[in-house]
Amino acid sequence: MAKFLTNREENYAQWYNDLVIKAELAENSAVRGCMVIRPYGYAIWEKIQAELDRMFKATGHVNAYFPLFIPKSFFAREAAHVEGFAKECAVVTHYRLKNDETGKGIIIDPEARLEEELIVRPTSETIIWNTYKNWIQSYRDLPILINQWANVVRWEMRTRLFLRTAEFLWQEGHTAHATSEEAMEETLKIINLYADFAENTMAIPVVKGYKTESERFAGALETLTIEALMQDGKALQAGTSHFLGQNFAKAFDVKFTDRTGKLDYVWATSWGVSTRLMGALVMAHADNNGLVLPPKLAPIQVVIVPIYKTDSDLNAISATALKIKSDLESAGISVTYDDRDTQTPGWKFSHYEFKGVPVRIAVGPRDVKNNTAEIARRDTLEKETIPAGRIKEHVVRLLEDIQKNIYRKALQFREENTYYPDSWEEFKNIIEDKGGFVMAHWDGTPETEARIKEETKATIRCIPIDSKEEKGKCIYSGKPSGRRVLFAVAY
Amino acid sequence: MAKFLTNREENYAQWYNDLVIKAELAENSAVRGCMVIRPYGYAIWEKIQAELDRMFKATGHVNAYFPLFIPKSFFAREAAHVEGFAKECAVVTHYRLKNDETGKGIIIDPEARLEEELIVRPTSETIIWNTYKNWIQSYRDLPILINQWANVVRWEMRTRLFLRTAEFLWQEGHTAHATSEEAMEETLKIINLYADFAENTMAIPVVKGYKTESERFAGALETLTIEALMQDGKALQAGTSHFLGQNFAKAFDVKFTDRTGKLDYVWATSWGVSTRLMGALVMAHADNNGLVLPPKLAPIQVVIVPIYKTDSDLNAISATALKIKSDLESAGISVTYDDRDTQTPGWKFSHYEFKGVPVRIAVGPRDVKNNTAEIARRDTLEKETIPAGRIKEHVVRLLEDIQKNIYRKALQFREENTYYPDSWEEFKNIIEDKGGFVMAHWDGTPETEARIKEETKATIRCIPIDSKEEKGKCIYSGKPSGRRVLFAVAY
Repeated sequence: MAKFLTNREENYAQWYNDLVIKAELAENSAVRGCMVIRPYGYAIWEKIQAELDRMFKATGHVNAYFPLFIPKSFFAREAAHVEGFAKECAVVTHYRLKNDETGKGIIIDPEARLEEELIVRPTSETIIWNTYKNWIQSYRDLPILINQWANVVRWEMRTRLFLRTAEFLWQEGHTAHATSEEAMEETLKIINLYADFAENTMAIPVVKGYKTESERFAGALETLTIEALMQDGKALQAGTSHFLGQNFAKAFDVKFTDRTGKLDYVWATSWGVSTRLMGALVMAHADNNGLVLPPKLAPIQVVIVPIYKTDSDLNAISATALKIKSDLESAGISVTYDDRDTQTPGWKFSHYEFKGVPVRIAVGPRDVKNNTAEIARRDTLEKETIPAGRIKEHVVRLLEDIQKNIYRKALQFREENTYYPDSWEEFKNIIEDKGGFVMAHWDGTPETEARIKEETKATIRCIPIDSKEEKGKCIYSGKPSGRRVLFAVAY
Repeated sequence: MAKFLTNREENYAQWYNDLVIKAELAENSAVRGCMVIRPYGYAIWEKIQAELDRMFKATGHVNAYFPLFIPKSFFAREAAHVEGFAKECAVVTHYRLKNDETGKGIIIDPEARLEEELIVRPTSETIIWNTYKNWIQSYRDLPILINQWANVVRWEMRTRLFLRTAEFLWQEGHTAHATSEEAMEETLKIINLYADFAENTMAIPVVKGYKTESERFAGALETLTIEALMQDGKALQAGTSHFLGQNFAKAFDVKFTDRTGKLDYVWATSWGVSTRLMGALVMAHADNNGLVLPPKLAPIQVVIVPIYKTDSDLNAISATALKIKSDLESAGISVTYDDRDTQTPGWKFSHYEFKGVPVRIAVGPRDVKNNTAEIARRDTLEKETIPAGRIKEHVVRLLEDIQKNIYRKALQFREENTYYPDSWEEFKNIIEDKGGFVMAHWDGTPETEARIKEETKATIRCIPIDSKEEKGKCIYSGKPSGRRVLFAVAY
């Protein structure tokens, strides 16, 4: 166990915070609630971005960029949206500073007050639909399938690195369609894409489902979500996709002429994932030895560490190590050879273990003699000695296996921590003692949902898409229910 | 000539603005001075980003992300920096809105005033050096070679799409070094990298040189620049790299222990290019028919247009066209086959010409019969009929040739518009009548520089790195000068 890391079982929240900071993923900045994403963390985020961007483009989406600022009045146009969003946000009121005449540094120039305040975007539906108004006249202009990679700001009172920060990075898709069906299809297509990404790239199993009315995005008719289970038994909402109906088109007067010549409002979707995924990645896989990164997102997939006493040992070892490195790189694997003489092999072993590097190769004098190397995997900490000629093939397979194994492990954890209580007592005990995913019957009313939340802090994470019809009684009210829904305490 | 495009020779500024908007690169938004970058423009920016990012990483740099907001007091710490930057900027004063009690929508909550105002970053030296303070203790922590891709805001009174906007996208490198020499080496390495990128990827020749003291970045000891000549005879500063000495380290108290155990302040550089490059790309190459994109930055490198009358014609043509498409794609070329039946071939020809697509392939019934295709190049508008079997090889070479030819043309334009006057009269006439790059002697004083600017609007763009020693007399004061410097009226 890494000595300077809080034990995960003792204090999960502290373990998480330690890990994010000490693995140099991110840290708090001088600005309240805003984080600095450090190079190692950002390298993982770049891999997340690259794969999502590839998936968006493969499904016909293009990128664009809209302004950081939104006029205050735009928020007031969509009634539900203003309630949900416009309150806790950064407001720009002035556009100039000046020297203080009393010599006390710089102050706001009172003459440079904006006529209308600008809001730093918490999300971009309003400014984008105000723009779409000029782009859309006819069905021939549709669909518009645009994504934006951007920073957004939501003024949060209690922040946690990656999970909840005032500024965060994300992508937000905003699409416009000629029919309700097409927009709903897009909403589903994206939640499936997110689930695919979470499971196959991040190695995190997720439950796809519909949000209840009270948990929907401000302005949406339907919100689809992917929900993941963290190792402390809490749920994390990892991505959402919204069917917005004609709400924003109506708010910004965006009409089009359909094939029959009839004027109608345009149908909309929006969807996003954020740097919150970085938090999910840590919380789903890491352990008391540090990060465990799925190979597909690891900035360094393989590290080679030389074990030597003398310089002549090192020369022979380096020749072998560099041959292994170039072999692996020819297979598209990212490899670091750490031959620094300022650190011991033991220090390097812990260091890369802590950083979650999937595969470590150690080469010592005996390996040079026997033409072998010792290969260790981060996920299970197992080691094997492999003949030089088989290393490339072995590592290629090992990386695939680690990717699958990390997923399998997370899935097994979720299965072991998913419960199906049929009594309120049982429900409360599970939520209180164990946490986890709780599939239970619900009578479908917001009142019951609110009371359950009040009494247990558990919320309905979603009504799973693949939830089977099953006659039952609401866990709280006893009224009839047609299927179980997913409850959990959430981040 | 594209009919809806203002003639370049009649009104260059209007031609530029028309082109940016009508080619759907960007447009003005509802927020004063902030632009919307449309998908076609953003696709070019993504290619610029990808190549620069590759070059940064190949030279050992890594990416990270720092906060959007900077506490107001940070700006006051570096004296020159506050003078140069902190004045025209967006100031966040509040973090909450609320419903107006008189029912007039939403207003700022006066109770949610920030203790210290936050500035939306106009550049990030201050927040980054405040962070580096915690990362640097010893020479072993150096160098730090970090780049950030981000949005920044500088409140500009007069804005022009891409060239000068309140919000723009850019990259900003911020490096920390143990010695002055190493920092200066980095400053030079980056300006060479920028010049390489401008010339070999953007096909824009540039002059590399040192800024005079009055044109330096606020807080820099040296600013290196690349300067490009636009088709209207004005200069455009396309990228800068700054040697910051120990100024920011002193302002934020960033010290390190060197190899001898001595404490010293850290040496710094910073450098950046922005979406302004998009403006340079348009203004350097485009003509009265629209954009001319260098193949390395063209989102669509080849468009295939079918010429047909009947559906059975189209079937045969499509078979040929799709074969060509997949052939070209196998060579890594991006190809669009536009078989829309809602537009005529003539419309498509002008459309892709306007969009600057480097190569157009037309396939008609006669081509199907003869097993040929007509290939047109955007830069010279020349056409050739090529046998099917040679198309791939031909297009690969043609794209390389277009890339070189666009550069050659821009270089020739610059050479024809670079002047070497030796009298003040001559100097003034050139600046007034012709514009262009003016290499002239200068006595080295800020006073002369200021007077020349006042009388002609021409500024010293740079003291070129490769400017030869040459005895002469200052064009303005007649005092002795050791070399010519580059004057021009600039964007």
